[in-house]
Amino acid sequence: MRTIKQNFKVQFSYGVHFTEGVFKEDNTLLRDILSQANVGSSSKVLFVIDDGVAKAHPTLSDQISEYASTYSDVFHLAASPILVLGGEEVKNDKRHLQLLLDSVNEFGICRHSYIVAIGGGAVLDMVGFAAAIAHRGIRHIRIPTTVLSQNDSGVGVKNGINAFGKKNFVGTFAPPAAVINDSLFLHTLNDAEWRSGISEAIKVALIKDSDFYHSIKRDAHKLVARNMAAMQQLIFRCAELHVEHIGGKDPFEFGSSRPLDFGHWSAHKLEQITDYRLRHGEAVAIGIALDVIYSKLIGMISEAECDNILDLFQKLQFDLFIPELLQQEPDGKLTLIKGLNEFREHLGGQLTIMLLSNIGTGVEVNTLNEALIIQAVGELQQKYQPHSSTTV
Amino acid sequence: MRTIKQNFKVQFSYGVHFTEGVFKEDNTLLRDILSQANVGSSSKVLFVIDDGVAKAHPTLSDQISEYASTYSDVFHLAASPILVLGGEEVKNDKRHLQLLLDSVNEFGICRHSYIVAIGGGAVLDMVGFAAAIAHRGIRHIRIPTTVLSQNDSGVGVKNGINAFGKKNFVGTFAPPAAVINDSLFLHTLNDAEWRSGISEAIKVALIKDSDFYHSIKRDAHKLVARNMAAMQQLIFRCAELHVEHIGGKDPFEFGSSRPLDFGHWSAHKLEQITDYRLRHGEAVAIGIALDVIYSKLIGMISEAECDNILDLFQKLQFDLFIPELLQQEPDGKLTLIKGLNEFREHLGGQLTIMLLSNIGTGVEVNTLNEALIIQAVGELQQKYQPHSSTTV
Repeated sequence: MRTIKQNFKVQFSYGVHFTEGVFKEDNTLLRDILSQANVGSSSKVLFVIDDGVAKAHPTLSDQISEYASTYSDVFHLAASPILVLGGEEVKNDKRHLQLLLDSVNEFGICRHSYIVAIGGGAVLDMVGFAAAIAHRGIRHIRIPTTVLSQNDSGVGVKNGINAFGKKNFVGTFAPPAAVINDSLFLHTLNDAEWRSGISEAIKVALIKDSDFYHSIKRDAHKLVARNMAAMQQLIFRCAELHVEHIGGKDPFEFGSSRPLDFGHWSAHKLEQITDYRLRHGEAVAIGIALDVIYSKLIGMISEAECDNILDLFQKLQFDLFIPELLQQEPDGKLTLIKGLNEFREHLGGQLTIMLLSNIGTGVEVNTLNEALIIQAVGELQQKYQPHSSTTV
Repeated sequence: MRTIKQNFKVQFSYGVHFTEGVFKEDNTLLRDILSQANVGSSSKVLFVIDDGVAKAHPTLSDQISEYASTYSDVFHLAASPILVLGGEEVKNDKRHLQLLLDSVNEFGICRHSYIVAIGGGAVLDMVGFAAAIAHRGIRHIRIPTTVLSQNDSGVGVKNGINAFGKKNFVGTFAPPAAVINDSLFLHTLNDAEWRSGISEAIKVALIKDSDFYHSIKRDAHKLVARNMAAMQQLIFRCAELHVEHIGGKDPFEFGSSRPLDFGHWSAHKLEQITDYRLRHGEAVAIGIALDVIYSKLIGMISEAECDNILDLFQKLQFDLFIPELLQQEPDGKLTLIKGLNEFREHLGGQLTIMLLSNIGTGVEVNTLNEALIIQAVGELQQKYQPHSSTTV
């Protein structure tokens, strides 16, 4: 028997840029990014816009056209921007993906063209997946428009769509060519959208950076009052921690460890059983609350720290109890707990769940006790919906 | 404006192993590969088999079951092997991909499980794509069963399916966990399958290794007589040159240069316009012949070298002329020439075509002259079908 050994490294680099008014004529950020790769020729660019963003910014398409004509030496539009549905539905229905592949074919988008996606996390995930698989990968620029996508999902290397009722069942790891966080888009978010992204910042602060956690706590009232400076600071530090983490040991998650999924095993399931009525960030807040209480129940963190965290979510006006937490399977088990196995299956290998040993330090465990999960759900119910008719 | 810089490298390693009788009880190669990652636990493995291979090897499924029970400490079957259609049709019809995704869901295949594909290049491409996108990437082992897949497509990092009548319109770069080339599968190939893989070896020899080219020429009669030792030597060296090339400068082809696509701009188009009646290797033989004649017409290689190469293809009994070379578009242009633009579009960026400066040395050019392509087609027709009724 003979063996030929293959062994190589692939280098990935991209910037997460913070700006205001990316399509203002004198803002050369996007122009500069597009001019880097195809020196001396004009890049073909296809824009894809989240329907909700287009409605909130009715002149956006016109601004893009004007920007393109100003910098026509560097790039040109492959076609008018394509509008796609916002929210999780764009990941649930494969026809949206097909529409994008059709466009790639129709407009002759190639591996040296760019697809620029403007929208919330769901749109970025779907468009990123289309870009990753068409022609085995078209250069992709993300312009996230929500708090959640600017500080978390949009700055990373993953994309995906849903299948079989499971989040991100299909997807790839495909680093973008660039990410542009434009604060102008944050102004038009509704309060729920503004709030929900904060839970991912709390998540990463809890497992990695107690100073950041305490700064979020200090700024809680400003964040509720929609203070843009406080939000910008939160987004920057959260994005920075995410980028650092991804660039660290295991960018494409070959191993079993997934610390950034703290609070997510239950969050994914809650999103699904509420038919995505619950936003991702809202589900993550409940997921974190559950795992924080669990960490307390097994003696990993103190009651004071647990209360401190729950108190922050309350200050930020998150709902930490929803009736679906009590939903049961025909065999009487909590539906929620099925999420634990689905989470293991999606990650693969051994179940690896992040808990807290104190604020700022995550610790991974490989089992969760079902009785204690039920007890944690009970605590949430007691605290946040004490007069509910059903109990766990 | 602030920027967070992301910058990381991802390491990929795999072996291309040569063996005989991979499922023989005492052959521990596959067992050893599967035992590397999930130390101390039994890996879940889903086998997917090319229908044509299953028919030629009716006991294959049973052998796999027996092999699995012998090494049950290391791995277990997720389900009975799944049979899929062989040949290009498995890449043309998305339902085959969907069937695999259904199976991943149904059998709880996770990122730490394995999908093992046994078959020709088309099956490996489709199964590899399914494995690459399900759960953002399931470990994938390829067992190529044809000359072409053992020496070329199966040892690389690409996968894909067809769409919009275009080859590999959708796919990813996803290195396998391992490749196992089992010579036993070569015995049951028909002559056309046996022959067609040789053209990729000639291709890589022509652009990279004149010694290899001359050894193929020396062995031509042995190869026609189906001498297994000669074929094994050809496959090994060809795979080695491919693996070296891929592990070199640009494994995921971010640039425009694609030397291994020598002869392929026309080959892809010929496959498509013959509805894949023409095998990939057969199309590549014609594609190489065309580009070799073209290289001669522009004075890059000598007439003697050109004839030497055409003579080798003839010795190996390749057909170097098919009527579809003359097929015209409504505007009178050769359909073949449309392939040039589709090739550019698929690769992206500037057109980059490999030609020969002598046997063993490829040179890239950025334009092809249409009149000279037509002249090259004419030479093929004159040489290999001089009495045809239509002419170019």
